[in-house]
Amino acid sequence: MEPWKTAIVNAADGSIRLRGHDVTTLMTQATFTDTIFLLHRERLPNTNERAMLDAVLSGVADHGAGAPSCATARLVASGNRQSLSAAVAAGLLAVGDEHGGAGSACMELIAEGIELGARESIGLDEAARRIVAQSRESGRRLPGLGHRVHTIDPRTPVLFEMARSRGIAGNGVAFLEALEIAVRERIKPLPINIDGALAAVLHDLGFPPPFGKLVFLIGRVAGLTAEVAEEYAREKPMRIRIPVVYDGVPPQP
Amino acid sequence: MEPWKTAIVNAADGSIRLRGHDVTTLMTQATFTDTIFLLHRERLPNTNERAMLDAVLSGVADHGAGAPSCATARLVASGNRQSLSAAVAAGLLAVGDEHGGAGSACMELIAEGIELGARESIGLDEAARRIVAQSRESGRRLPGLGHRVHTIDPRTPVLFEMARSRGIAGNGVAFLEALEIAVRERIKPLPINIDGALAAVLHDLGFPPPFGKLVFLIGRVAGLTAEVAEEYAREKPMRIRIPVVYDGVPPQP
Amino acid sequence: MEPWKTAIVNAADGSIRLRGHDVTTLMTQATFTDTIFLLHRERLPNTNERAMLDAVLSGVADHGAGAPSCATARLVASGNRQSLSAAVAAGLLAVGDEHGGAGSACMELIAEGIELGARESIGLDEAARRIVAQSRESGRRLPGLGHRVHTIDPRTPVLFEMARSRGIAGNGVAFLEALEIAVRERIKPLPINIDGALAAVLHDLGFPPPFGKLVFLIGRVAGLTAEVAEEYAREKPMRIRIPVVYDGVPPQP
Amino acid sequence: MEPWKTAIVNAADGSIRLRGHDVTTLMTQATFTDTIFLLHRERLPNTNERAMLDAVLSGVADHGAGAPSCATARLVASGNRQSLSAAVAAGLLAVGDEHGGAGSACMELIAEGIELGARESIGLDEAARRIVAQSRESGRRLPGLGHRVHTIDPRTPVLFEMARSRGIAGNGVAFLEALEIAVRERIKPLPINIDGALAAVLHDLGFPPPFGKLVFLIGRVAGLTAEVAEEYAREKPMRIRIPVVYDGVPPQP
Repeated sequence: MEPWKTAIVNAADGSIRLRGHDVTTLMTQATFTDTIFLLHRERLPNTNERAMLDAVLSGVADHGAGAPSCATARLVASGNRQSLSAAVAAGLLAVGDEHGGAGSACMELIAEGIELGARESIGLDEAARRIVAQSRESGRRLPGLGHRVHTIDPRTPVLFEMARSRGIAGNGVAFLEALEIAVRERIKPLPINIDGALAAVLHDLGFPPPFGKLVFLIGRVAGLTAEVAEEYAREKPMRIRIPVVYDGVPPQP
Repeated sequence: MEPWKTAIVNAADGSIRLRGHDVTTLMTQATFTDTIFLLHRERLPNTNERAMLDAVLSGVADHGAGAPSCATARLVASGNRQSLSAAVAAGLLAVGDEHGGAGSACMELIAEGIELGARESIGLDEAARRIVAQSRESGRRLPGLGHRVHTIDPRTPVLFEMARSRGIAGNGVAFLEALEIAVRERIKPLPINIDGALAAVLHDLGFPPPFGKLVFLIGRVAGLTAEVAEEYAREKPMRIRIPVVYDGVPPQP
Repeated sequence: MEPWKTAIVNAADGSIRLRGHDVTTLMTQATFTDTIFLLHRERLPNTNERAMLDAVLSGVADHGAGAPSCATARLVASGNRQSLSAAVAAGLLAVGDEHGGAGSACMELIAEGIELGARESIGLDEAARRIVAQSRESGRRLPGLGHRVHTIDPRTPVLFEMARSRGIAGNGVAFLEALEIAVRERIKPLPINIDGALAAVLHDLGFPPPFGKLVFLIGRVAGLTAEVAEEYAREKPMRIRIPVVYDGVPPQP
Repeated sequence: MEPWKTAIVNAADGSIRLRGHDVTTLMTQATFTDTIFLLHRERLPNTNERAMLDAVLSGVADHGAGAPSCATARLVASGNRQSLSAAVAAGLLAVGDEHGGAGSACMELIAEGIELGARESIGLDEAARRIVAQSRESGRRLPGLGHRVHTIDPRTPVLFEMARSRGIAGNGVAFLEALEIAVRERIKPLPINIDGALAAVLHDLGFPPPFGKLVFLIGRVAGLTAEVAEEYAREKPMRIRIPVVYDGVPPQP
């Protein structure tokens, strides 16, 4: 088999280098958030970029034991006490476009809107209006807007204020705010949710769309590990049995 | 990298051979249960062995949407609609010594008891009494006995009757029945549960202890795939939010 | 929380019923393949249907230790010896549209082609030609045709012959064969692969499109469990380290 | 179903509080590492504690694409392009006592050694010698010592120097160093590996033993997400097929 090629880590010569940086230097001089930024953006962040990424990661770390990812991790911890990894991994599997992962699709939408504005030489406001018009026609859902629980997610304004005060807010934040206005005018008020907010700031930080989902996995592992540790410490195995009602065919002969 | 060595499948020459048997022959002349037996026992089963393994696999296929493995699969299907594999795999992760996997530990216990009887030239009854005495001293739980829900699991007598009428019952079934009696006499009545019953018959079929857990994974996938298919077909994404009550520290300044 | 509703299993009253059938009856009178069919089709199969599903399941059970699903299971078994479930589940995670899961997309394509033929009152041959013409325009790949390794997959003719001789072959097989001809005439020869073959026969057996992926998961678990058992039995933990070559940025100061 | 109880997150009243701290405050005033510390230790860290945890997390973030966890994530990304979560989760499943998870067992050993010293009123040196003597008799492996690749892991001295200069080193570091000396005197030189080093400093930071494995999961997700992103960006699906050699039974009739 041909060796795999990678531009991430070189551990061939006794040292371990991440994107060229010796891991021992990172350990003493960088934060974990710096290392995350480095692994995904191929350079270390400045102070404002680091603070922004810290805010996103803390913002998605946990949302309660009943959220699908956390509840999944606890169910696995309830049935399988042989592997902490299995419980945490199962929690990650619950993350998809519907739960925690819409940031990725929203980053694609933002890139599409900005590109449309540039190509057609129209402003972001007009690009947002056209995207909304298209979505009405095609029935495409607009990721990053609307939320099942919060009318206004308290995390959204925090991220946008930080992005502005730290000089990071750019076309990503501007387009998403234009989109929210266009949706309110043409359809109905749908507030920017946490997936949309993090998508906008991650776009302005220069991350590619898949990172909108990956960042949720990185942040949520902090919470999942705590949920699993609590399940092991406080609860007995097999405590969880979800109540079900059968509504299928009657007994067969 | 050195090629890996394997004695399971040879797909090197255009044909695909499982334990030496051409897959196209298996497809036309064997049942899926034959193929499972072949992969794990390196030969095809006879009629009685096949029927016995069929009974075990059907017996563990599903136990209701609320069982940890099934509920886990549904939670993942609720949050992540991009991957059927992710939901089914998460369901398997919930299988451990506490849920579905005790058959493996029980097969080890059976092997230990039979080996003790042979080494000490005592009968299986006496071996069972010694194992019970040891377990009382060491506090070791005896896998395969007791059940959270059923007083008598309806599947246990079915497996034992089949094992007897089909000439498969041997030392495994005999030892586990002796163990149940010894536990009733020395501790308290604890019926043989499904994990214990399948462990005894799989021992007598010649399978090694890990198969006591693996057989549950094989059987349960039938149910998990049906649970996930129903979740996709009948339910909306993100329908499931487990209710939680917070009992931790009060708000911090 | 509201109880979940399900039409699959009723385990409320001490007995366990799958689609209305008592599990103890299934254990003594049905094969595991019957139970799989029952869980997914809501009734038991006849002899021909059972044989056909057996053929599909045995056909995808294993394809060698180096296939992505099997290699993944072995890698996890190499690093994590605490959980057989974790290794088997990881193997399933490698199954997607690119590996083992194309049957699902092909079943959707078959349904689309048959529906097109009915709606436009054209034959399946003409429907296949139109689908091929559309795919050339849109650049859409046609799932179920072509294979990376085998020119002609030996499993494809076996499935089609069985489907014919057992009276199961219907519009699904007919449409896929028409599609193969249309592709050969308009583009280039692309043989029907195993995903396509099982999609056609599963369509004709009345299964819905997701089952094209789920059936692969059910069948492949037979092989994954054997691969993991062999890894535990024959190999030391941490034996596997894939060779890599670093081609990224040079050491940074 | 009774609501679950938890002391981690309260999201009941519109705000989201982690261990009592409003998530919006954490987003603006804390680092992600602070949040991780808070979730697991129920209070925020001081500067030295934060720096120490940062060092551990960066130290385990990635070790090359060929390590079992990273290679697993890439294999899944190769076969299944529908779910980033599936690839990252599979990578975590490869983490066990043999790969990345020995920190947990080493933290238990450290706690045992310190407890032995206190109970018997002997110093940590004598406690270490007794643990080594016991391990020689029972054949128990001592987690945290020895390494397959590095003679001296460059990350170990970095962690221990930081722990000393930042006033964190306590009984955990002292006991593990005593253990290394006792092993060298009684058995053979076995350097403290990264699992042992992080176990010692996490003990001195006040974390419970399971965190020795959980911290690896948290740190490694940073690397796994980068590995998966690179696989998607640079490689085609299904590029990976591990070479295998068959050494089983010959073709059967």
